Amino acid sequence: MSFSNTAGQVIRCKAAVAWEAGEPLVIEEVEVAPPQAMQVRLKILFTSLCHTDVYFWEAKGQTPLFPRIFGHEAGGIVESVGEGVTDLKPGDHVLPVFTGECKECRHCKSEESNMCDLLRINIDRGVMLNDGKSRFSINGQPIYHFVGTSTFSEYTVVHVGCVAKINPAAPLDKVCVLSCGISTGLGATLNVAKPKKGSTVAIFGLGAVGLAAAEGARIAGASRIIGVDLNAKRFDEAKKFGVTEFVNPKDHDKPVQEVIAEMTGGGVDRSVECTGSINAMISAFECVHDGWGIAVLVGVPNKDDAFKTHPMNILNERTLKGTFFGNYKPRSDLPSVVERYMNKELELEKFITHEVPFSEINKAFEFMLKGDGLRCIIRMDA
Amino acid sequence: MSFSNTAGQVIRCKAAVAWEAGEPLVIEEVEVAPPQAMQVRLKILFTSLCHTDVYFWEAKGQTPLFPRIFGHEAGGIVESVGEGVTDLKPGDHVLPVFTGECKECRHCKSEESNMCDLLRINIDRGVMLNDGKSRFSINGQPIYHFVGTSTFSEYTVVHVGCVAKINPAAPLDKVCVLSCGISTGLGATLNVAKPKKGSTVAIFGLGAVGLAAAEGARIAGASRIIGVDLNAKRFDEAKKFGVTEFVNPKDHDKPVQEVIAEMTGGGVDRSVECTGSINAMISAFECVHDGWGIAVLVGVPNKDDAFKTHPMNILNERTLKGTFFGNYKPRSDLPSVVERYMNKELELEKFITHEVPFSEINKAFEFMLKGDGLRCIIRMDA
Repeated sequence: MSFSNTAGQVIRCKAAVAWEAGEPLVIEEVEVAPPQAMQVRLKILFTSLCHTDVYFWEAKGQTPLFPRIFGHEAGGIVESVGEGVTDLKPGDHVLPVFTGECKECRHCKSEESNMCDLLRINIDRGVMLNDGKSRFSINGQPIYHFVGTSTFSEYTVVHVGCVAKINPAAPLDKVCVLSCGISTGLGATLNVAKPKKGSTVAIFGLGAVGLAAAEGARIAGASRIIGVDLNAKRFDEAKKFGVTEFVNPKDHDKPVQEVIAEMTGGGVDRSVECTGSINAMISAFECVHDGWGIAVLVGVPNKDDAFKTHPMNILNERTLKGTFFGNYKPRSDLPSVVERYMNKELELEKFITHEVPFSEINKAFEFMLKGDGLRCIIRMDA
Repeated sequence: MSFSNTAGQVIRCKAAVAWEAGEPLVIEEVEVAPPQAMQVRLKILFTSLCHTDVYFWEAKGQTPLFPRIFGHEAGGIVESVGEGVTDLKPGDHVLPVFTGECKECRHCKSEESNMCDLLRINIDRGVMLNDGKSRFSINGQPIYHFVGTSTFSEYTVVHVGCVAKINPAAPLDKVCVLSCGISTGLGATLNVAKPKKGSTVAIFGLGAVGLAAAEGARIAGASRIIGVDLNAKRFDEAKKFGVTEFVNPKDHDKPVQEVIAEMTGGGVDRSVECTGSINAMISAFECVHDGWGIAVLVGVPNKDDAFKTHPMNILNERTLKGTFFGNYKPRSDLPSVVERYMNKELELEKFITHEVPFSEINKAFEFMLKGDGLRCIIRMDA
């Protein structure tokens, strides 16, 4: 495949533009400027919808930034590269990521962190880092970017630090979901909670992220995976992801951490919290066994929440950890997650419950708002 | 050395008895019954005083249990062993420990925990586990044990699971301090915080436990060790333990975690909290760097305290861990801590600021109540 005829040129293509908070996206013809230094322009082939898109599209409680092109879970191909880009070339298969890896800062140089100082997720910025400008426009009117990716467009411009080069044999319509939620849950378990073979794991929240955390526990060989959710309907589907037991907090008079402690002789070995509810966070921490239990927080809380526990719960040798994007460094680590799928260790098909053509992208929003399914793939060529 | 003439017999010896809360101890002649199954009788040669002894002797806020023989940091020699004891024999040099290792329970079998189900510290129990009776008496009146050790006696009976056999070449008047506080602080750093060479570490509280935590950071090769204490007088002494910088929260208008973040470009790599103050615990957590920071809590809080932080502090990849006795398993791990002293890696002399004969044991209480010095060694033969 060659894109050389468009390199250095403005590309006119289709993009789904959010003109106003909460209003259906509109497919528009946009102009996409060429990539500048350390940037690449990608042809997006498949994208999927994540809660974060919907959250910022609804713009309840945040400063709204419109018109904007959302989208951050996607798979594509490099169309052209800007000055100084040596890691990528036209034709490479890639996953754009909402957070980056500059490979220069203290975080990138630490083997323990993936929270790059330069390219860490920034929700409020709708422009490119280098010049403070957008690469998208319609008749000269700039359209804002979203988390540096804006994948609801046939072409997009991304910082090279936010692009993972992957195995070109990997089907982009499947591995595109690894750009965000699935890697977040999977990595929370595999990289942070690290359950041992035969251990017990509790997963709070059985949406896509929580089920990916359960998938991680299944891959790690956990013998009991206890799913916790307020929605009883989620339990059946969760079995496919290795969940062996279910607890609905609504079915019990006592705190769910006590229910889990009774089920497990004192607590689970590991827990992963994927809801963002502060009460679930506290329960997830208090339900791990003293002496060795590790609780991992993934879900993003409300800004006024306070995590509160008795300090003896900590002193009795429990560990509380937070994670961001499953502790994966986007460029260094995502290729190996794709390989987990290629060697059939990780089953991505289970997460993909819908598919729509780009022209019907608003249906993907409807599915998510109804809580129908897990991931909806949006085909850009249809 | 042979004790075979006393095996199986009641031994009459001197012990310092606490008859009432807060009253000076009285040296009395006590009878010490022989050890029963899985118990050993020890001749104590040196003991030292720890805050925990003073706390339960003062008995403010707990159920008082008197008359009682306190003491839990000590070095001694096995006088005789009860039925079923195969790991120890008369003449072995040992450290009794306030918590135990049965080697059979889930905690003992886990490489991650030292919180033995059978022999975990029990403050309220003043008798032996097997028969619910004391081994100490005066004219037939039982005198209660303390945390299974009661080392303020020339002879004491201890469960074999609470006795670490150590190198007989180690001087007991030095290594006796490893029974509790010094190992607690040292292990919190070396086993739990695990700072890398060249890293920055904050230590909250510069008493014996905190200075042992600093000693651990010095041994680990930390490049900056920031001591935090409300008592400015402690700073000079702390330099001997590797502390390079000092912060007195009273000298600042802003929270100490902000002061430390400014000193370190965003936070320290590791922190260890050794005061038990809930505010220090929160500061110790919030002062570690996002992405990789680990905070370890050691100090024991008041029972009504609540640990409270914004959950984003956790989600930004900070880790909060609690530890008990520095995560050392008493029997398996203490011998190697003694070896750290023997090979001059660990400097125990710095912790020993006073020495008194057994007949003047109340002076050791006075030093501690005045905050004078770190550890006072009590010589049993004097």
